[in-house]
Amino acid sequence: FDSRAGSFSPTHHPTGPRRPSPLRAMGLVKKGDAEATPAEAPEDPPVVKQLKELDDKYLELEKEYDREVQKLLVKFSALQQPLLEERKQVLLTSEGDGPTTGTPALSGFWLKAMQHHPNFEDFIQEWDEPVMEFLQDITKAHADEEDSNKGFKLVFHFAENPYFENKEIEKVYTSEMSNPYCGEIDVKEIKCTTIEWKAGKDVTVEKVAKKVKGGGAKKAKQKKEKDEPRPSFFREFFRNLKE
Amino acid sequence: FDSRAGSFSPTHHPTGPRRPSPLRAMGLVKKGDAEATPAEAPEDPPVVKQLKELDDKYLELEKEYDREVQKLLVKFSALQQPLLEERKQVLLTSEGDGPTTGTPALSGFWLKAMQHHPNFEDFIQEWDEPVMEFLQDITKAHADEEDSNKGFKLVFHFAENPYFENKEIEKVYTSEMSNPYCGEIDVKEIKCTTIEWKAGKDVTVEKVAKKVKGGGAKKAKQKKEKDEPRPSFFREFFRNLKE
Repeated sequence: FDSRAGSFSPTHHPTGPRRPSPLRAMGLVKKGDAEATPAEAPEDPPVVKQLKELDDKYLELEKEYDREVQKLLVKFSALQQPLLEERKQVLLTSEGDGPTTGTPALSGFWLKAMQHHPNFEDFIQEWDEPVMEFLQDITKAHADEEDSNKGFKLVFHFAENPYFENKEIEKVYTSEMSNPYCGEIDVKEIKCTTIEWKAGKDVTVEKVAKKVKGGGAKKAKQKKEKDEPRPSFFREFFRNLKE
Repeated sequence: FDSRAGSFSPTHHPTGPRRPSPLRAMGLVKKGDAEATPAEAPEDPPVVKQLKELDDKYLELEKEYDREVQKLLVKFSALQQPLLEERKQVLLTSEGDGPTTGTPALSGFWLKAMQHHPNFEDFIQEWDEPVMEFLQDITKAHADEEDSNKGFKLVFHFAENPYFENKEIEKVYTSEMSNPYCGEIDVKEIKCTTIEWKAGKDVTVEKVAKKVKGGGAKKAKQKKEKDEPRPSFFREFFRNLKE
């Protein structure tokens, strides 16, 4: 989960260049160049032409590499899938007298898993925890099996629970490769299932006393409450966004 | 260039899960578990044993996938290398009367390339620009061809120039896979070549008048200057770090 496209820090460089970075290209090919028609574009000097030809060859190999990696991804995902399915079955096995949570065989499995994950740990609040006990599984799927750059979705599967009606909460990321020369991918849209909270069970808000303007002792007694948003995994993670 | 390991933003998720994330594992296997001897570790309940076995199988496939991708990386890097070599030759070709910069065939090629790159653009200051005109090439190499997680180095090749003595400035990243269950890689060390600036040519500092405490008109005339650090690509990018 990279946080900001285009960010850079001299202190962290966790993955390094997985493949040679076609730095050369970036000086010459900018966004939108592809759309310029030959009539509009001024003729390139010979040296630039020569460099662009090299660039095209380089990028062709890059795309071939991506396609090969994609094939491996599909292949190994298929090999791993039965293990994930088996895990789910193990976790859902109930011995009858166990607690009725999302994973009766090992209560709170997913909550713990997410609390240990660097991408989630800071998002999970105290009041999210009892809700997440009802998580049964998290699954993912790519928007396009041939091209993982186009996006993916995460599906959070929940057991019947006192908090909301949904059985599944989805988060769908739609993205595209915006700059093939430096492998930059832009997220264009994020769409999430609306959570249908049961009455009074929305953990993303808290009841606070409503200030009643003016009024005497009588009015002060009629305490009113209103819902104020508070931090929550269910608010911050399942948020719609559009570029 | 991911900025912070463990960072997360609901707004950007540029690459998505390239491969299934073994979330399950993270609830059960923590850092250091491997070092615990069976004598110290309490016996796992049967369900945890079962889940750990599934995890090991999953991780075995994950490693096999990594090895296959690594092979592709080596293969395609080798195919691309001649194109990078040709690019270098094109750029270095001098027609004799051209400017004596790093890339006589196309002056300022690398400066432009880096200014267009999202990971560098914010680092390059006005005073860095004339220095970067002398860049001839940027090359990279992995610390271990079999395992790209172990780190890599970038080498900045410079033509003879009025600014510093170095012909090559290296930045070496040493990293390791710290958590195979979520693919977390930690940078352990960054080591850079010390830049040997020529006298008065260090663009990473600026001369400022030194405040002379006390003293009258006579002392004030003896203006002293001292070097104050200022932002610079050469300061911020080539910085040593150790965990």
